Amino acid sequence: MQKLANRLERLGTETAFSVAQAAAAWKAKGNRVYPFHLGDINIPMAPHIVEAMNRAIADGYTGYCPGPGIPQLREALAEDIGARRGMEFSPDNVVVMTGGKPVITKFLQAVMDPGQEVIYPNPGFPIYESQIEYLGGTAVPYRYVPTESGFAIDLDQVRASITPNTTAIIYNDLQNPISAESTAAEREAIAQLAIEHDLWVLSDEAYFETRYEGVSSSIAALPGMAERTVILYTFSKKFAMTGSRLGCAVAPLEIAQIMSKLNTNDESCTTHYVQWAGIEALRGPQEPVQQMLDVLKERRDVACEIVNSIPGVHVAVPQSTFYLFPDVTEAMERKGFTTVGEFATAALENTGVSFCTREHFGRRLPGEERQYIRLAYSGIETADIREGLGRLREWIEA
Amino acid sequence: MQKLANRLERLGTETAFSVAQAAAAWKAKGNRVYPFHLGDINIPMAPHIVEAMNRAIADGYTGYCPGPGIPQLREALAEDIGARRGMEFSPDNVVVMTGGKPVITKFLQAVMDPGQEVIYPNPGFPIYESQIEYLGGTAVPYRYVPTESGFAIDLDQVRASITPNTTAIIYNDLQNPISAESTAAEREAIAQLAIEHDLWVLSDEAYFETRYEGVSSSIAALPGMAERTVILYTFSKKFAMTGSRLGCAVAPLEIAQIMSKLNTNDESCTTHYVQWAGIEALRGPQEPVQQMLDVLKERRDVACEIVNSIPGVHVAVPQSTFYLFPDVTEAMERKGFTTVGEFATAALENTGVSFCTREHFGRRLPGEERQYIRLAYSGIETADIREGLGRLREWIEA
Ligand SMILES: Cc1ncc(COP(=O)(O)O)c(C=O)c1O
Ligand SMILES: Cc1ncc(COP(=O)(O)O)c(C=O)c1O
Repeated sequence: MQKLANRLERLGTETAFSVAQAAAAWKAKGNRVYPFHLGDINIPMAPHIVEAMNRAIADGYTGYCPGPGIPQLREALAEDIGARRGMEFSPDNVVVMTGGKPVITKFLQAVMDPGQEVIYPNPGFPIYESQIEYLGGTAVPYRYVPTESGFAIDLDQVRASITPNTTAIIYNDLQNPISAESTAAEREAIAQLAIEHDLWVLSDEAYFETRYEGVSSSIAALPGMAERTVILYTFSKKFAMTGSRLGCAVAPLEIAQIMSKLNTNDESCTTHYVQWAGIEALRGPQEPVQQMLDVLKERRDVACEIVNSIPGVHVAVPQSTFYLFPDVTEAMERKGFTTVGEFATAALENTGVSFCTREHFGRRLPGEERQYIRLAYSGIETADIREGLGRLREWIEA
Repeated sequence: MQKLANRLERLGTETAFSVAQAAAAWKAKGNRVYPFHLGDINIPMAPHIVEAMNRAIADGYTGYCPGPGIPQLREALAEDIGARRGMEFSPDNVVVMTGGKPVITKFLQAVMDPGQEVIYPNPGFPIYESQIEYLGGTAVPYRYVPTESGFAIDLDQVRASITPNTTAIIYNDLQNPISAESTAAEREAIAQLAIEHDLWVLSDEAYFETRYEGVSSSIAALPGMAERTVILYTFSKKFAMTGSRLGCAVAPLEIAQIMSKLNTNDESCTTHYVQWAGIEALRGPQEPVQQMLDVLKERRDVACEIVNSIPGVHVAVPQSTFYLFPDVTEAMERKGFTTVGEFATAALENTGVSFCTREHFGRRLPGEERQYIRLAYSGIETADIREGLGRLREWIEA
């Protein structure tokens, strides 16, 4: 048989899937599992959104629709995304996609040639690294340093990483997995570097509205940034619509047109009636969004309190996302583990607590000394958070 | 601003969209339009399929699901697609996608390196040509010759086009736009060439079950072919689910695994609850499928009869798909047109009949002398077919 394409050697993936498999296998053996590994939400999609979808089907919106999305949804998105960022977008800036994730590959396809460099956060969403390299670029990681209130971007390192060959920077304020949030100064410093070196910016704003205190700001709203920034927007987290696959890019016109052409090539369009559900999500009652945030906030508070009561484990309380990224270095030492993967396996087998680790979020960087795990509290009830993390504490204390 | 990626210069698209725009503009001026340009279906999705989707939502299937699809749908597809082709597939061979179209780019990404050649049908579905070239390959067209009963592949040309650099052939039996159907001998000849030259095959079977007489056969079922063939399957045409975006690849295991990894990178998964609708479509009542075929058959018969009564226009009656690809060479001469695009515009403006032409289905080949248009009868009622094509006849006769 003919060989397969060489590009496949550069294709990465989300390795967190193997954690879900290990948890399922452990559960199948009759054990109790506390699922902190999911980036998914165990809260139903609001009924009014489902009803809008059914109305659309009844009205016959079951055929193909335009590649960049139906005009009504593009308009609703331009309005909503613009208003929340203090910006003005035209519906032509909005390209609807099957979730936020497709924005990553389509952005890179549009702005990066093979051999060029893209700077990306590490630890970070693993698809950045995978797609930069798959498309023939060089993935240049930037790191975070722990602070009192969470993590800060190592700006000196970002600056030092930029070469004449750098074409773009990926920026994920309200960060998965570490829940880092930029100060205004940090955001401005990143914008300044992008402008100075004429870089494209992918601003991954998947968690822009998943926040419990404070106000979100977009780097796209800073002077000189709108024309070089593509916003990744998604319905997944805000509306508990992860399985609906609905999101969009908000992009400068030229890039929006390219993305629309890529849509036509790749999948024709996003599911037609789901787009009508999206309009209802944006314009209909917003109580379900607030209710979900209230639930998540309670979970965050409970989780943070217990995590910080475990000897050798520490986390700053994040104001957004639904992830905790505690430092477990001392706890690992205490239990005699040198790799965080072994620590995670032992935690599952001794306590039923299942979680991802730093290893699932990009290649480990040289000089990294601290050890981290990621606890997602979006897919587990408060009572189970209490029980599971309580067991984890007992095990580590023992 | 930094420049955009070079690969974009090689990106094609579906130009048929401009026909829809021209038709809409003509209608907006107060004119009657007869839409023969759509590849879409003006028949609703069956209610039992919609109900299954709502049951899935009520049962909480609204979160992320596995990249290659939910196991239950992969199983149903393996069973159904296998049974109809006299083949045996495992659910592991099936990778669910957001329609049939994504199979094209994912197949090419898996088997074709930049600089390699892929042989594809022309006239043919325009995304073949676009994606081969976008991904850095060379798109080598093969042509069809008119016969008594439709069109036949120019096998000598296919043979002559294969070089040591050829990695794959795209084969679309039951063809869009020309409705060509292989004889058993032609299908075997293509398989023989693929085996002899060790080529991968993409078998685009989008219209496998859109047929009015006869029985469909898959090239994948021929000896030595299963291990080198990827089947493109879609719910779009069979179940009037074009806007639902649901399809799959059926592929050798190694390629299925690659496609699943590409899904994880590109869009995570296909809309979760739509996959449950797909199971119901496959396993639930099949009467709506037959009812739709009855309607389409009547439209075909009416359309073919009128088309063949127009002076200088001729079409063989196809047994499958919902397209007619009549030769309009003499009609164009009669009306004094030298380009088929001008002919189409004049037809719209004089009769309201809107259609695509040969020009929308790949680059015109050297030596092409005959002129063709494509009439799709999937989006227009029988009465309007009669009225519209009647007007076309009057105009051409005049
Ligand atoms: C940082 C980040 N970006 C993008 C996404 C993509 O989400 P989706 O494709 O469901 O919109 C996720 C999902 O977990 C994420 O965490
Ligand atoms: C030949 C052929 N292949 C593939 C497709 C893709 O259809 P879908 O992506 O809706 O499954 C079409 C749609 O018109 C087609 O005509």
